[in-house]
Amino acid sequence: MEFDEVVRRRRMVRGYDPDRPVPPELVDKIVRHGLRAPSAGFSQGWSFLVLTEAADRELFWSSTATGSNGWLDRMRTAPLIIVALSNKSAYIERYAESDKGWADRDESRWPVPYWDIDTGFAALLMHLTAVNEDLASCFIGLPADRTDAFKKAFGVPDQFTPIGALTVGYRGADKRSPSLARGHRPVAEVVHHGRWASRGEV
Amino acid sequence: MEFDEVVRRRRMVRGYDPDRPVPPELVDKIVRHGLRAPSAGFSQGWSFLVLTEAADRELFWSSTATGSNGWLDRMRTAPLIIVALSNKSAYIERYAESDKGWADRDESRWPVPYWDIDTGFAALLMHLTAVNEDLASCFIGLPADRTDAFKKAFGVPDQFTPIGALTVGYRGADKRSPSLARGHRPVAEVVHHGRWASRGEV
Repeated sequence: MEFDEVVRRRRMVRGYDPDRPVPPELVDKIVRHGLRAPSAGFSQGWSFLVLTEAADRELFWSSTATGSNGWLDRMRTAPLIIVALSNKSAYIERYAESDKGWADRDESRWPVPYWDIDTGFAALLMHLTAVNEDLASCFIGLPADRTDAFKKAFGVPDQFTPIGALTVGYRGADKRSPSLARGHRPVAEVVHHGRWASRGEV
Repeated sequence: MEFDEVVRRRRMVRGYDPDRPVPPELVDKIVRHGLRAPSAGFSQGWSFLVLTEAADRELFWSSTATGSNGWLDRMRTAPLIIVALSNKSAYIERYAESDKGWADRDESRWPVPYWDIDTGFAALLMHLTAVNEDLASCFIGLPADRTDAFKKAFGVPDQFTPIGALTVGYRGADKRSPSLARGHRPVAEVVHHGRWASRGEV
């Protein structure tokens, strides 16, 4: 598919055909594209937990979600879940190497958490790859108070933090996010030219 | 360009043709694609500072860089700089609305900083769009100890944090990042199926 078409079609889809799994070769292509994301110092401090078996997917939902609701019912139809996890320590160690020289491992050197941002890059590349393969997908966060339960359920080492999960499948009955009614912020509000407040702007 | 081709060609390029500006319609297309990134609760808590004038670009480099070196000389050839800024307060306020209900504005509810991750999504979409238009680009962080100088120089309000800048232009003399010699992490090390440690894995 043309890149522009992928950008146009990209949206979060929250309902899937439960009887149509994602072919293994597409699972493989999606995760391999995730590995092609850029990262600071080529640290690649990410890992992906890939869940295709029904019992594993059920464990994901039971460990991360609480209660029951229509959203959860629709999300549970996804035949594939990819959890994206960041590893801050991989960045701290990478930048302590001689070519970077932050041997003090001082975290205040980091203006923003590139481990989370780079892992987000990987998640977005996987999401776009799904669109390109005529698959639907949705990126969701894990509730902060369920992180420990999730990590324990899947044996995730301490240094990894789930930044979110991508549900993937063939499109089923969807329900658009009510948030979309907010509309896109106008370009003139988001984009600043030359200075924050150009002449004439407030 | 086909999406897969964009993914294959994507790389960080650190040298540009200084005599070939990015056509205004492509600047516009790049930032509009940035606005199409997904965001938690459709918060869209990002802003982009677009610098095309030589004096503005010079101010960017003089406010953010220190000393002189070959890397900086090559990066300065970029005819377009887009600084991506995140706004945490937009997320805190969005999720305090009645449909989300986090009226206490408690930041501990946020497992990871989606304001930075979402703004990263926008930056990656702009980077990929540049590739699709046969432009070269590079995403760089701003040094933590230069953030204040940068914000003062451009009149950036307190609540915005630069998560990085995208340099864009037609490809010039480049120098590959020495970090690439590290190689990609192997798929088997990054990707875990079903559980972190599958049977047979250490």
